[in-house]
Amino acid sequence: MQENSLPENRYVHGYSARESERLADQARTLTELLHDDTHYPAGSRVLEAGCGTGAQTVILARNSPGARIVSVDISDESLRLAQEKIRQEGITNVEFRQGNIFNLPFGPESFDHIFVCFVLEHLADPKRALIQLCPLLKKGGTITVIEGDHGSAYFHPENKDARRAIDCLVKLQQQAGGNALIGRQLFPLLTGAGFSDVRVSPRMVYVDSSRPALVEGFTKLTFTAMVEGVGPEVEKKGLMSREAWERGIAALYRTAESDGVFCYTFFKATACK
Amino acid sequence: MQENSLPENRYVHGYSARESERLADQARTLTELLHDDTHYPAGSRVLEAGCGTGAQTVILARNSPGARIVSVDISDESLRLAQEKIRQEGITNVEFRQGNIFNLPFGPESFDHIFVCFVLEHLADPKRALIQLCPLLKKGGTITVIEGDHGSAYFHPENKDARRAIDCLVKLQQQAGGNALIGRQLFPLLTGAGFSDVRVSPRMVYVDSSRPALVEGFTKLTFTAMVEGVGPEVEKKGLMSREAWERGIAALYRTAESDGVFCYTFFKATACK
Repeated sequence: MQENSLPENRYVHGYSARESERLADQARTLTELLHDDTHYPAGSRVLEAGCGTGAQTVILARNSPGARIVSVDISDESLRLAQEKIRQEGITNVEFRQGNIFNLPFGPESFDHIFVCFVLEHLADPKRALIQLCPLLKKGGTITVIEGDHGSAYFHPENKDARRAIDCLVKLQQQAGGNALIGRQLFPLLTGAGFSDVRVSPRMVYVDSSRPALVEGFTKLTFTAMVEGVGPEVEKKGLMSREAWERGIAALYRTAESDGVFCYTFFKATACK
Repeated sequence: MQENSLPENRYVHGYSARESERLADQARTLTELLHDDTHYPAGSRVLEAGCGTGAQTVILARNSPGARIVSVDISDESLRLAQEKIRQEGITNVEFRQGNIFNLPFGPESFDHIFVCFVLEHLADPKRALIQLCPLLKKGGTITVIEGDHGSAYFHPENKDARRAIDCLVKLQQQAGGNALIGRQLFPLLTGAGFSDVRVSPRMVYVDSSRPALVEGFTKLTFTAMVEGVGPEVEKKGLMSREAWERGIAALYRTAESDGVFCYTFFKATACK
């Protein structure tokens, strides 16, 4: 009602500005959801084990500008890309080292904190990796682990082919020696590796059409695109017929329509040495 | 280290007291998780549509002691139990009325707020129930809906028979004209029924052995007991063999062991008329 008393332009612009802000807020939602409670004190020495191409490194370094971060990856090519990304962002508190997470080139108690994000899901023996990391922590140091869990995905409308398509992704990751259902296992993994005071905090992403940036940024461009990406391999291995696969992918995109809903949960664990 | 400098008894008692407090905190967790952000102003008139035996009525009335709550259910027997519960708790701001949610005995704009909890899951046409409720709200009034979603359950260790047992529960609820996967659908249901400004907030219950009261109170005594309860009906209808069923139930209890994890999500939606 009150809007009618405002000049039309003013209202439209005001609304657009608020709308843009809301969209930008939502685009930041995922990063905030996963990382906003990780801040390391100035002067602390932090190991990022498995930095890949540096997507999380940028966030980590920005959240803890005074920490000295050492980011390690097994792949020289990934490290080169990560280094380039950090340079472009003008970040100066990160150094990179090549290394294998099962045999890192650091002495005992080299770090105050360890950060591991989207790494364990790719390892055949994630518990052993955690066991190897433990001695690198100083007494009283903490480890933070973040992983997704593809078995936490559910949606509306429900669809059997979509469910089968996701199961194919889980199966392929398993065949590659990984575990796409690892998120829910962080508690037993960390306690089993000898860490104490393990606290797991699930971070659920809930998407409906009132959250348009998440519809685009998560349901379509993150999750469904990731499933869609393994289509050729699914076909090659004959895990699903092409028709059923295409129905499954279409059903996942269908959840991004105005009456659709998509749910996914990441798990974040912290523990002490 | 420091504990050694304390007299042993003092430490043990201190620890036990903290431990008791922690357990009590966790027992309150589920109620807080679902209800703690629902407070209606003094003098406001609130309809609880489908109060059953009054489990939520007690919480609702305590959270909004100044509101005048009208709790309705179709079953006289349930109403009698609800009334008795409220009397025992010394709650005085609730009156009970018998009525059918599809045809309630109230005029238009009778209420400032409507509250619906664990009701829609039992209805064959939940959208029509919401459409019928809408006119009872005053302009600017709000509706709050809380529902579970059995498809949101996942756990570690994963188990096929446990999964099938849960699917049996979903199927039986469907055969009875309900929908055990309704939680995720609150956004399309409320928008489809004509409510505006629909906001859905998922409330995930995450249980591992660091949260012993939830292991007992949720994994075992709430979820697994509920699945176990339909065992005779599952057997009668031949939905699963007795052996597979028993393996499934055992696998659900297995998730309550020290290295187990159980996840379940409730959905809470609020909307305006």
